[in-house]
Amino acid sequence: MNNYFSIKDIDSLDHWVNEAIELKKDPLSNKALGTDKTIGLLFFNPSLRTRLSTQKAALNLGMNVVVMNFTGEGWSLEYGDGTVMDQGNSEHVKEAAQVVSQYCDVLAIRAFAKLESKEEDYEENVLKSFIKYASIPVINMESATGHPLQALTDAITITEHKTTHKPKIVLSWAPHPKALPQAVANSFVEMTQRMDADFVITHPEGFELASQITNEVPIEYNQENALKDADFVYVKNWSSYTHYGKTSQDQSWKITEEKMKLTNNAKLMHCLPVRRNVVVDDVVIDSENSIVIEQANNRTYAAQLVLKKILENK
Amino acid sequence: MNNYFSIKDIDSLDHWVNEAIELKKDPLSNKALGTDKTIGLLFFNPSLRTRLSTQKAALNLGMNVVVMNFTGEGWSLEYGDGTVMDQGNSEHVKEAAQVVSQYCDVLAIRAFAKLESKEEDYEENVLKSFIKYASIPVINMESATGHPLQALTDAITITEHKTTHKPKIVLSWAPHPKALPQAVANSFVEMTQRMDADFVITHPEGFELASQITNEVPIEYNQENALKDADFVYVKNWSSYTHYGKTSQDQSWKITEEKMKLTNNAKLMHCLPVRRNVVVDDVVIDSENSIVIEQANNRTYAAQLVLKKILENK
Amino acid sequence: MNNYFSIKDIDSLDHWVNEAIELKKDPLSNKALGTDKTIGLLFFNPSLRTRLSTQKAALNLGMNVVVMNFTGEGWSLEYGDGTVMDQGNSEHVKEAAQVVSQYCDVLAIRAFAKLESKEEDYEENVLKSFIKYASIPVINMESATGHPLQALTDAITITEHKTTHKPKIVLSWAPHPKALPQAVANSFVEMTQRMDADFVITHPEGFELASQITNEVPIEYNQENALKDADFVYVKNWSSYTHYGKTSQDQSWKITEEKMKLTNNAKLMHCLPVRRNVVVDDVVIDSENSIVIEQANNRTYAAQLVLKKILENK
Repeated sequence: MNNYFSIKDIDSLDHWVNEAIELKKDPLSNKALGTDKTIGLLFFNPSLRTRLSTQKAALNLGMNVVVMNFTGEGWSLEYGDGTVMDQGNSEHVKEAAQVVSQYCDVLAIRAFAKLESKEEDYEENVLKSFIKYASIPVINMESATGHPLQALTDAITITEHKTTHKPKIVLSWAPHPKALPQAVANSFVEMTQRMDADFVITHPEGFELASQITNEVPIEYNQENALKDADFVYVKNWSSYTHYGKTSQDQSWKITEEKMKLTNNAKLMHCLPVRRNVVVDDVVIDSENSIVIEQANNRTYAAQLVLKKILENK
Repeated sequence: MNNYFSIKDIDSLDHWVNEAIELKKDPLSNKALGTDKTIGLLFFNPSLRTRLSTQKAALNLGMNVVVMNFTGEGWSLEYGDGTVMDQGNSEHVKEAAQVVSQYCDVLAIRAFAKLESKEEDYEENVLKSFIKYASIPVINMESATGHPLQALTDAITITEHKTTHKPKIVLSWAPHPKALPQAVANSFVEMTQRMDADFVITHPEGFELASQITNEVPIEYNQENALKDADFVYVKNWSSYTHYGKTSQDQSWKITEEKMKLTNNAKLMHCLPVRRNVVVDDVVIDSENSIVIEQANNRTYAAQLVLKKILENK
Repeated sequence: MNNYFSIKDIDSLDHWVNEAIELKKDPLSNKALGTDKTIGLLFFNPSLRTRLSTQKAALNLGMNVVVMNFTGEGWSLEYGDGTVMDQGNSEHVKEAAQVVSQYCDVLAIRAFAKLESKEEDYEENVLKSFIKYASIPVINMESATGHPLQALTDAITITEHKTTHKPKIVLSWAPHPKALPQAVANSFVEMTQRMDADFVITHPEGFELASQITNEVPIEYNQENALKDADFVYVKNWSSYTHYGKTSQDQSWKITEEKMKLTNNAKLMHCLPVRRNVVVDDVVIDSENSIVIEQANNRTYAAQLVLKKILENK
């Protein structure tokens, strides 16, 4: 593997998940692999879990870590081809990507959707430009439309917690005061299609994800119907793809104790950060069936596996 | 020891000070202790000495260091129990603390007083919430009402410089253009009560520290009387506890060369940063009796001792 | 060598360049030199190349790296002697420099020109104050009037790419929408005077660099005349020294394909970041003769050589 841009870069999800679970048992077993290798983490947006778990993953592999917040610490970047750069941007991604490639062995980049233009976000200009111009492997730490480290994490977590061969997994849209990207939901949907699972998405009308991502996945507009007999409830807000970037605070979609009773004693998942009592009630996220903390823990092993694959490939 | 939240977490101040002084002679002697351990430094406020000395202490112990500025780099945190999180805060400390605990072996946190509400600050919501929800040891890098790493530093510095068994130590309030927390003064007062010292606090009326902290310590409203025969003058501004958060620029309280002549050739101490010619005159802080730089140096060994105690306890 | 403040701190440019080129062949050959040594990188301004290449250089030497952005992470500093510090600045450089010296073994500092006062910028107050008060070596990562790590990089790059003993080097002013410091140009001019080169500066009238820096270097106001038979074209904007801080967007000074045809198949150099199609046309910077990426790569080895010299001297 060269870059880890999307879940599609995984050749066999089953094998990867099993390898990550093995690696979790002895995280320092490959510490020699990264000696004298440097990963550069480039952030265009805030990050807690990704920032810390990716650093931890790299340290577990013996790598050096260099962190850079582009906003504030660096120069604002230009992505357009042929632009006359007489406005606000000081540096072109062509130079930035090539130059950084010379100081690091692996790059990892976070650049959220701006939610201003569907076309612009789905072009994935930032990540794709870095991949195009960088001469070293690039890892997606959440781009405009995908969060494949999170999705790999989710596959690990579901595998660890499932009690039947083919669990029922429900991705349930949640209300939110702020418009959020579709990235986590998109990658989760792509990942789930590669698992042996009975998968359904539920959301209000108008919150359909991009059809090129959902494909044949059943959509159920009645949340209670969807939740019936679920083994995993993955709750997550995303803003509308159709009415691009619009959000909704419709509290009837919040996950409550009542709704969880419809499920097959389902595990609750969320990528975090989560708005308590808006997305999900305290009593649910604080219950024994909530696995959100262990899910966050698996971020380290997802990142470490991706880094291991990249280092072994070099 | 599990957490280092306040000076009260020290079982024997004498023993700790002596151990820190030993450690200072050979700072790399415990380098194996921290191998493959990671400390996460979480900053909600600016920091120079604490930021760098705590990193140095961790490096001396062979630890990995991960630094995170919550403001700007992370998500704004919610601390309220049961809050419907539909306002500005994106993540609850419940998740943040539990999650970060999985990526690190020790946490260190700086979160200043806001000086808006005495009750809120003295509840120590931020530090206490992290301690409550974290599953790893937490170190106070200055909280709303205490700065115990500074106080341990001060004990080390006084011990190194004292020439009599029971020195006279004066904590002298100073004027300041900006309202500052009581944290440094509080922890210094708590620490000094555990030393064999003749300790007095001097400040204008209205600047009394919390009585549950000062206890029986004598307060002298006449600064010149207080300074007489002092062996150590610790000058420091704090805003009013009574008229909570009010400051004063009363220049008659500045430490001058004249006033130092009243002392027993006293050493001058300050935690830094210091406003020259407002808090203390240039001629005093630049004199041979000023030990503020060596005091700052001892920050490394105070932090290193605390980390050593925590690592040995694990 | 103690400090690396300006190109004048290099005893023999030839020897240094050759040593850097050797070091580039085997960057990890001196990894033991920096063991248990810590470099502190202090940034008062944005940085991409300097930030990452200096970290990489330190890591190649086995050093620990501590990065601090003064803006936001630390306290605003006062530089004036005898100032009554009752305004915005919280800490005097006297304390900051002495204190940081106790936590690190080497300091590296970036502090740009403010372009408000020629006298103030050319006094080099920030860097000179740190050098004055620090008790450890200080490296200039671009100060108000010089960028000697860049100039050493440029000497390495020219030496690697020159095909004649005494190449013709042209420093060509470029238009820019934003007023930029003279630092890069100044250090390049100082460096070039120490090389065996036929060196000429070309710029519009009113953009003369400080005469104490240019000395006897010929200035040619006709860009096309200057470019004739050039082996290296170093294009760079700087704001006016005479009309201090004024910039110009005069597009007739942009480097175009046409103009490059006047040269002796010249290599194109720029320190980056560069405004494409304002400073230089895409077709030129994307041509085979553009060596700006390799130039940026050499930043690592310039920084590593300077650090090596400092560590060997200790």
